[in-house]
Amino acid sequence: MTKIGIVGVSGLVGQEILKLLHDRNFNVTLLRLFGTTDNGMVTKFTLKEARIVDIIFLCTPASFSKTYAKQLTEGDGPKVIDMSSAYRLDKDIPLVIPEINGHLIGSNKIIACSNCTTAICAMVLYPLHKEFKIKKLIMSTYQATSGAGKSGLSELKKQTTNVLTDLEDNHNHKCIAFDHPIAFNVIPHIDDFEENGYTKEEMKVVHETRRIFDDPDINISCTAVRVPTCRAHAISITMETEEDISDDEARFVLSDVPGVIIKDDVHNNIYPMLCTATENDLVEVGRIRQSLIFGNKGIDLFICGDQLLRGAALNSVLIAEQFLKC
Amino acid sequence: MTKIGIVGVSGLVGQEILKLLHDRNFNVTLLRLFGTTDNGMVTKFTLKEARIVDIIFLCTPASFSKTYAKQLTEGDGPKVIDMSSAYRLDKDIPLVIPEINGHLIGSNKIIACSNCTTAICAMVLYPLHKEFKIKKLIMSTYQATSGAGKSGLSELKKQTTNVLTDLEDNHNHKCIAFDHPIAFNVIPHIDDFEENGYTKEEMKVVHETRRIFDDPDINISCTAVRVPTCRAHAISITMETEEDISDDEARFVLSDVPGVIIKDDVHNNIYPMLCTATENDLVEVGRIRQSLIFGNKGIDLFICGDQLLRGAALNSVLIAEQFLKC
Repeated sequence: MTKIGIVGVSGLVGQEILKLLHDRNFNVTLLRLFGTTDNGMVTKFTLKEARIVDIIFLCTPASFSKTYAKQLTEGDGPKVIDMSSAYRLDKDIPLVIPEINGHLIGSNKIIACSNCTTAICAMVLYPLHKEFKIKKLIMSTYQATSGAGKSGLSELKKQTTNVLTDLEDNHNHKCIAFDHPIAFNVIPHIDDFEENGYTKEEMKVVHETRRIFDDPDINISCTAVRVPTCRAHAISITMETEEDISDDEARFVLSDVPGVIIKDDVHNNIYPMLCTATENDLVEVGRIRQSLIFGNKGIDLFICGDQLLRGAALNSVLIAEQFLKC
Repeated sequence: MTKIGIVGVSGLVGQEILKLLHDRNFNVTLLRLFGTTDNGMVTKFTLKEARIVDIIFLCTPASFSKTYAKQLTEGDGPKVIDMSSAYRLDKDIPLVIPEINGHLIGSNKIIACSNCTTAICAMVLYPLHKEFKIKKLIMSTYQATSGAGKSGLSELKKQTTNVLTDLEDNHNHKCIAFDHPIAFNVIPHIDDFEENGYTKEEMKVVHETRRIFDDPDINISCTAVRVPTCRAHAISITMETEEDISDDEARFVLSDVPGVIIKDDVHNNIYPMLCTATENDLVEVGRIRQSLIFGNKGIDLFICGDQLLRGAALNSVLIAEQFLKC
């Protein structure tokens, strides 16, 4: 018996939340959808109309969330699940992946969701961290165009079609969602650059992972790369651990983690891939092997996860489900 | 005044060698082309006909090179430049990237070329190794379909076209060049798997880099991933060095390296990309930044290079040019 609101329902993540609420039989008594569409089914956001619901999902830019999240929750206003980066590093607002730190939800009225790469990786890395204590994490990402929203995905498809039909060469594309052509290209640039030469996207992975793991001492480096794919992300990871670790021990720990599936039977060509992780709630992990650098204090592995589901919508709906239990 | 032979001239690398010989005004008096094509312009390989040239390029599988390379060179037979993996780790045969260890060519009659990822990375890493002594290298690759030859490239284009025109979904492709659909996918699997869980491709990077650098002590880990792109490879690298290193110092060292171009002006969105590295002799390096893990003893960087040129054909033609000087 819950009144639900979604702000930004026309976007890729908003659409997935809507679908998940349906598919998971979420008990919705009233649904208020805010956003912009052509068909007029969605209303323009106003504080007054948004405050009548019990739980509201903000699939909005950080600037919007910063302006409205706290106003929404005032008094008997709804609980807010914010998908943006607005509050991810705010010490008064929990940054939650329910399977890892769902206990932080408590009576908080605003909960932040992490960025998609962090959410996908944390599902695999946190259980390993608990068991073996991760000291160093070196991550290189293979990130899908859906991370840039609908326009990213459509730019990939349009440019790729044009290259294949010889309508234009690869240097002649109109680029809006990305700074360079994405068709048959890789671009080592996601979000703005910071002073230290890393992108905001890369530093989000560093800061948010440390916060979710509640461990400021993990050394993390990330290279975030856009690749010409649709909606699942992949991440190649090398880690050093405090405790001894082996590939078998890692597999044993991960074999029992809700939300994670081991795809690691290389002799039968089974490993994580975007095509199998797409539209799948589970995060795939495989290519687990003893580190050639850190010996018995490290492993290498490869992760794939749906950027819209585990990376965003699924995480937020799991938080909503936990709100109902509080 | 040189008689040149190319075995496997119909393949992607053979074609590039042919083009480079022309573009670089290589002084060819006789050209013997062996391979298989539809137009009958190429002759079937025989030892007798191949032995009449001065220099012969083997763009052939390792098994072919193993059978014929030594027989070719016997007596007054030609010098052999072998693109395959047959002799790369053979201590009697030099593994050469001319800019790095061209002095090893000497009077040797067989010279091995490294695999494409190693060749591209070594151009950037060796100058840094000389200056700062690399202790650890962690590499994740973004490898183009041309690495699997013509059939890899055509499989990418065919599958991608079919997805975009709704002729088939992503799970329904006929896969020959790759074990799984490559259209809009990434596949963390290139070449066969070894006992330690790494692929042969990954271990080639480890062994060949150590051999070319003449340093068996460098710790190297590689994750080799096929991405849906055409003919340039990208590599994300984190390194730890023995000596202090900064991003500026690395840029300074690399600014003067023949064959390497720095693309590293992030505030103007300039960094290495496949689309700019394609059909370019130069290896692009950028995203150079101080390591968040190894502090002033490490940097992160990103490299792109044409897999067919610096990764194969260009390297072999540079070796041929050096043969002429010996």
